[in-house]
Amino acid sequence: MSVLPSGGETAPGGGPEDRAARVALTWLAEPGNRAVWTLVEQAGAPATLEQLLSGDIPDKRLRIAVAARAAAGDARRMAEIAIRRADRLGARLVVPSDEEWPRRIIDLATLQLDSSGRINSDTRPPLGFWVRGEWALGETLERSVAIVGARAATNYGLHVTGELASGITRMGWTVLSGGAFGVDAAAHRGALAAGGRTVAVLACGIDRPYPAGNAALFDRIADSGLLVSEWPIGAEPLRHRFLIRNRVIAAATAGTVVVEAAARSGAAQTMSRVLALHRPAMVVPGPVTSAMSVGCHEILRNNPYARVVTNAAEVLEEVGRIGEYLAETPRGPERRHDHLDEETALVLEALPPNGSATPEELAAAARLSLRTVLRRLSLLEIAGLVVRTRDGVALAPAPGRNRRDAD
Amino acid sequence: MSVLPSGGETAPGGGPEDRAARVALTWLAEPGNRAVWTLVEQAGAPATLEQLLSGDIPDKRLRIAVAARAAAGDARRMAEIAIRRADRLGARLVVPSDEEWPRRIIDLATLQLDSSGRINSDTRPPLGFWVRGEWALGETLERSVAIVGARAATNYGLHVTGELASGITRMGWTVLSGGAFGVDAAAHRGALAAGGRTVAVLACGIDRPYPAGNAALFDRIADSGLLVSEWPIGAEPLRHRFLIRNRVIAAATAGTVVVEAAARSGAAQTMSRVLALHRPAMVVPGPVTSAMSVGCHEILRNNPYARVVTNAAEVLEEVGRIGEYLAETPRGPERRHDHLDEETALVLEALPPNGSATPEELAAAARLSLRTVLRRLSLLEIAGLVVRTRDGVALAPAPGRNRRDAD
Repeated sequence: MSVLPSGGETAPGGGPEDRAARVALTWLAEPGNRAVWTLVEQAGAPATLEQLLSGDIPDKRLRIAVAARAAAGDARRMAEIAIRRADRLGARLVVPSDEEWPRRIIDLATLQLDSSGRINSDTRPPLGFWVRGEWALGETLERSVAIVGARAATNYGLHVTGELASGITRMGWTVLSGGAFGVDAAAHRGALAAGGRTVAVLACGIDRPYPAGNAALFDRIADSGLLVSEWPIGAEPLRHRFLIRNRVIAAATAGTVVVEAAARSGAAQTMSRVLALHRPAMVVPGPVTSAMSVGCHEILRNNPYARVVTNAAEVLEEVGRIGEYLAETPRGPERRHDHLDEETALVLEALPPNGSATPEELAAAARLSLRTVLRRLSLLEIAGLVVRTRDGVALAPAPGRNRRDAD
Repeated sequence: MSVLPSGGETAPGGGPEDRAARVALTWLAEPGNRAVWTLVEQAGAPATLEQLLSGDIPDKRLRIAVAARAAAGDARRMAEIAIRRADRLGARLVVPSDEEWPRRIIDLATLQLDSSGRINSDTRPPLGFWVRGEWALGETLERSVAIVGARAATNYGLHVTGELASGITRMGWTVLSGGAFGVDAAAHRGALAAGGRTVAVLACGIDRPYPAGNAALFDRIADSGLLVSEWPIGAEPLRHRFLIRNRVIAAATAGTVVVEAAARSGAAQTMSRVLALHRPAMVVPGPVTSAMSVGCHEILRNNPYARVVTNAAEVLEEVGRIGEYLAETPRGPERRHDHLDEETALVLEALPPNGSATPEELAAAARLSLRTVLRRLSLLEIAGLVVRTRDGVALAPAPGRNRRDAD
């Protein structure tokens, strides 16, 4: 069984037949289904669809579910309709063979059943994503952080979420969340307010604003970020779909932050999946007197690897530890650092003479830890030597054009 | 070198000469001094005093310090005065050979120098404690938890501290703290309000209320708990003494909780010592927007073994893990649990028919983890089957005396 996103030799995929079959399969069975995903990996989507429609399905639960859906409509016809409607909406289908497929999502194939068999049974990778928005999906998710939390967030939670999302996008990262009221909406708003990129992953068709109160927000997200869903246009936001959707939030991002969660909330499940995927599981603590922080503290107490974070810099420090996005950048020729300590000077030297660099790029270039770079950048910012930009940080303008002109 | 609290064969100690020498030594050199403590362990206090007064001191720093003190007064005479003044105050000197010597404090002898040599250089065990109050020092500290934190605590910190201290003492444990405003004072007040035992460890003579605003509080503590100090009567609260005192707070208790601390506060140093002593290091989180919680979150981020706690039950769960205070108790003869699950029934069975038991005793009797016992006790309390008492928990009175009388 191949776990490569290309789909393996027997399922090259990506053509119209493959795409239509993936849509029909998602209509026949919920995304994440272990048996369906395994068949697609082995035989490709069209052959899997054929097999499912023929009723030749060893897994009894899946057989019953598929029979019920097949009785309600013609899967191939439904897929055709969904594809046509998506076209009119300006939405596209992204499948594993596409260049913009998010490569990190394949890690869902590594999730093992837990001892209870419940939490991780239907957590296989998606067969495809419906996407609204202009950015390439994969590139956008590459440097993304999920922010999740309570619908009934307090003012504290909404404030902290907004600050986190703004800070994360200001450092050139993407924010990702669901579409709910509370923390989800505050995360998107914070990112949008900072002029940053944000991605909403829905548990229904991307033509259906759910909750309806967030319809205007979804439009703004589609305009400057991405609206994403595994479900075909028209699919309803059924309760169980939120749990299925949550696996994508955990797997598509470089790490997940929980800001406020009530006792025994779904956030704990999301966080155990994040940890199972070897991604940073980050928790914003709150007053122990607040019911909306009880779930956060539970996660911290129950998961030794969950980490306290209190601001965007700490979040980026955690996801930066993954270290897989480091890129070598040329050193700038200027030397404006005679009065600085060595580490700070190295960071300054690593900044390109024109344009921005991300802290990760600086860490790679200066051969320093991301933690050190972030600390030194704070000092340099305070000293007025660097400025934050939309894409990271840049050298501050030289002290006065006049002086440079006079040289 | 013996690390037994009895003082080793060459230093049986406990007689008037030994006591007077220990007081004189504490006057000559600050408590915790590594060289002094090692000499006392090897040769006994009187011989060590003689050696120090003779000027035969290999350690240069100590030699200079002792010479300065010796020039200021006669150490033996100062000790006599201190002992006489203590007598008048109703204070006693407790030394390692005494039955009430707190046995846990010897762990300070195991603290290694850290790589910088700074943090743990003068952290040897005390030579003696001055004590005001009626409880035996050792027995009182056996089941004790330190609560430390900011002087400039917020209302949130003061509230949480009070709740923690009340809850801890209601479960039969002792609270221990310093004598400062803020968290220290709130911890003592919370314990006193619950009718519990509390211990204040001062960094000056126990005749000197410092800060003066807490004088009335210190009197209440001496009345119903203990006032403790290593320094002789009359000693001033010099700044460096608080750091020396802090090692006692960490070592005398079964675990330490930090409620509120500013960035880079002394709490972080206390907590690294707590962890070095293999005691639970517990942290109460707070709003990430509060400057008074920044230090708490720093400790959590920098110490993977520091644990989040949000209430007294969680604190006792952590210190209960040490597991060294478990005692077997007889099982009660009653069986009132036909409708309960097995673990809950075991806890109920373990309760004595008359009087109280502590959760630790129940855990030992029922052969369950303390964590399980605390959870089951909560259920039993809600169900009205057990009640909290000053000494732990007890069976609730049978449903109505009338019924029992009628039997």
